[in-house]
Amino acid sequence: MKKYNFNAGPSILPAEVIAQTAQACQEFNGIGLSLMEISHRSKDFQPVMDEAQALLKELLDVPVGYSVVFLGGGASLQFCMIPFNYLEKKAAYLNTGTWAKKALKEAKLFGEVVEVASSADKNYTFIPKDYSVPADVDYFHFTSNNTIYGTEIRKDFDLPVPVIADMSSDILSRPVDVSKYAVIYGGAQKNLSMAGLTFVIIKDDTLGKVSRAIPTMLDYRTHIDKGSMFNTPPVVPIYSALMNLRWVKAQGGVKEMERRALERAAILYDEIDRNKLFRGTVETEDRSVMNICFVMNDEYKDLEADFMAFATARGMVGIKGHRSVGGFRASCYNAMSREGVEALVACMKEFEAQH
Amino acid sequence: MKKYNFNAGPSILPAEVIAQTAQACQEFNGIGLSLMEISHRSKDFQPVMDEAQALLKELLDVPVGYSVVFLGGGASLQFCMIPFNYLEKKAAYLNTGTWAKKALKEAKLFGEVVEVASSADKNYTFIPKDYSVPADVDYFHFTSNNTIYGTEIRKDFDLPVPVIADMSSDILSRPVDVSKYAVIYGGAQKNLSMAGLTFVIIKDDTLGKVSRAIPTMLDYRTHIDKGSMFNTPPVVPIYSALMNLRWVKAQGGVKEMERRALERAAILYDEIDRNKLFRGTVETEDRSVMNICFVMNDEYKDLEADFMAFATARGMVGIKGHRSVGGFRASCYNAMSREGVEALVACMKEFEAQH
Repeated sequence: MKKYNFNAGPSILPAEVIAQTAQACQEFNGIGLSLMEISHRSKDFQPVMDEAQALLKELLDVPVGYSVVFLGGGASLQFCMIPFNYLEKKAAYLNTGTWAKKALKEAKLFGEVVEVASSADKNYTFIPKDYSVPADVDYFHFTSNNTIYGTEIRKDFDLPVPVIADMSSDILSRPVDVSKYAVIYGGAQKNLSMAGLTFVIIKDDTLGKVSRAIPTMLDYRTHIDKGSMFNTPPVVPIYSALMNLRWVKAQGGVKEMERRALERAAILYDEIDRNKLFRGTVETEDRSVMNICFVMNDEYKDLEADFMAFATARGMVGIKGHRSVGGFRASCYNAMSREGVEALVACMKEFEAQH
Repeated sequence: MKKYNFNAGPSILPAEVIAQTAQACQEFNGIGLSLMEISHRSKDFQPVMDEAQALLKELLDVPVGYSVVFLGGGASLQFCMIPFNYLEKKAAYLNTGTWAKKALKEAKLFGEVVEVASSADKNYTFIPKDYSVPADVDYFHFTSNNTIYGTEIRKDFDLPVPVIADMSSDILSRPVDVSKYAVIYGGAQKNLSMAGLTFVIIKDDTLGKVSRAIPTMLDYRTHIDKGSMFNTPPVVPIYSALMNLRWVKAQGGVKEMERRALERAAILYDEIDRNKLFRGTVETEDRSVMNICFVMNDEYKDLEADFMAFATARGMVGIKGHRSVGGFRASCYNAMSREGVEALVACMKEFEAQH
C-alpha cells in the first residue's frame, strides 16, 4: 500500500533525495567508500558543502553580504545562540506558539525581553497583528510558521530594527525577501534534509555588536570564517540537504514550491470547511500552508479514533494532531504531492459518507 | 581495488554498519518509509534511541547513577558545555594537543583555569606525567587520545576531584572504569558512528553544583530529563551508532576491541621501528593505538610524496599526516582489520626494498 507521509518533522523528503542519500551511504561518488566514513575535509566532500551553501543562497536569492552556515544542535540551540550574538540590552519577541515561547525564554537569560504580543490565551489559534516593536531593541524575533498550532506568517516585516526569524518549518516553501532579515535560521528536518542539521543565514555586518565574550562554538563568526568547517559538520545530513536543494531547483525553485503549497492547502482546507465532520482550528487568515490542523466537530468528537484508524488503513501516516491541539495535523512540506493531499481528502469524504 | 580506510575521522565503519544504515535510509523496518523521514518520537525510532543508550552503557559497564545522552554539535560544543555545567571557580586542564588546548581555552571564559602540564613545547610528542592536580578545582579535564599527534593516555586517573575526559577518538577501543569519571564525552565520528552525533556519559549527582543560569540546550539536565529527546536528535547518526554498538558487542565487546587494537598497533609500530625509511613521531611509551603517526627518516625525506603515491596506488586511503606533524598518520579505529594494517606494512616493506 502506498504511504502518504504527513509527519510534522522529521518528515517527507523527495524519493530521489532518499535514494541518493541511501546510495551515498553505501558508496559515495564511486570512490569505494561510504559517505559515512570519509573526511569532511576531503576533496570529495568539500564540493558538497560548497554547493549546498551556494544553492541555498541561489534558491532564496540571498543578497551579497550574507553568509550561510550549517551547524548541528537543532534550532533549539539557536534559541540561545541568537541572544548570545545579538542581545546587548533588549530584544522583542512575538509569541505565536511553543517554539516562539521557547526562543523568548532563552533570551531572558541574556537581557531584557519585550513580548510584543502573544496569542497564548487563545491557544495560539491566531497571529497577533495589533502591536508595535520598540525602536530601541537590538532585534525583533518571530517564528514564521508554527508547526504545532498550524499558523503562519507569510510575509516579511518592514522594521527599523534587525529582524530575526525561525523558519524551521516553512523555509524553501515560498520566496522570502532575505534583505529584510538579519538572521533566518531553522532545523533542517522539514523542508531541507534529515534531522541533525541546522541552517543559519546571517547578514555579516550585524555581528560583533555585543560586548560579551561568546564561546567559540556559539559565535556565528567562528562558523562563517571557517565555512562551517570549524569542527566536523554533520556530513550525511549536509549531503541530503544538497540533494534536496538540487531537487527544489529542478522542480522550479521556491516559486513553484509556493504554488504547490498553496494548491495543496486549498484542496485540504476546502474539504475541512466543507466536510460536516471536521473544522479547522485556527483563524482562516492565519492558516499555515505547511501544517494543516483540524479537529472533529463537537457532535462527532467520538469518531476521532475511528477516523484515525480509517485513514491509517488507507496509507495516511503521521496525521495525529499534537497533544496541545488534539485532532489531526497534516503536514504538507515541499515533497508532499497533490496526490497525497487528494488521498487524504478522499478519506475524509468517504468517512463522512459512512456517518 | 580494495581500499583500506585510514581516515582520522569521519572514519572507517564496519561494512555491516554501512549496509544497515544505507538500507534504513532507503526503507526502515519494512514500514514503507525512510529512516530520514520518520518522527523521532515514533514507535519505530524510540526503541533505537533506547537500545543505543542501553548498549553504550552495557559495553562500557557504566555504573548505576550515570546517564548517557546523545546530542548534536560535536565534541567542540562540549568544550563550552563542560565549564557551563561544572566550572564554578577553578578547573584543571592537561594540555596534550590541539583539542585539549581548545577545550582549555573555552573554560577560561567561565573561571580560573590551571594548566597542570603541557607538552606543547615539544610539539605534543609526549604525555606529561610529572604534575599534580590542585585539590580545590571543580574538575580535572584531559583528552585521552590525541588524534592529531598520536599520543594516548590508556589509563584511568585516580583523583580526589571530578575527572572529565574527551574520549572522541578512543571510546569503545578498550575497557574504561567509568566509575572514576564525572563525565566522558566525544564526537561519534571515529569509533561510534557517522559525523553529526556526540555522546556524553554523565554521573548524575555531579550536576547542579554551579550557580550560573545555564541556557536550556547547554544544560545536561535538560537532555538527561528528556532522554535525549528535548529537541529533535540526529536520527540517522543515532541509528548508525546503534548498528555499530551491536557490531562491537557481537565481536566480543571492548575487551576484544582492545586486543585487536593492540595487535594492529604492534604490527604497524614494529614495522615503523624496523624499516630504515621511517620513524615514529612520539615517545614510545605514549604511542596511541588509534592514530599511528610516522615520518620519513631525515635522509629519505624527499621520498615522502613518492611513498604517498605508492601507498595510495595500493589502496591506502587517508594516510597523509596532519599538517601539524607532517608525514603519515594511519588511524586504526575499531573497524580497521588486521589485514588492512598488514597491507600498509607490505607497502612500507616493498617501498623500502625499492630504495
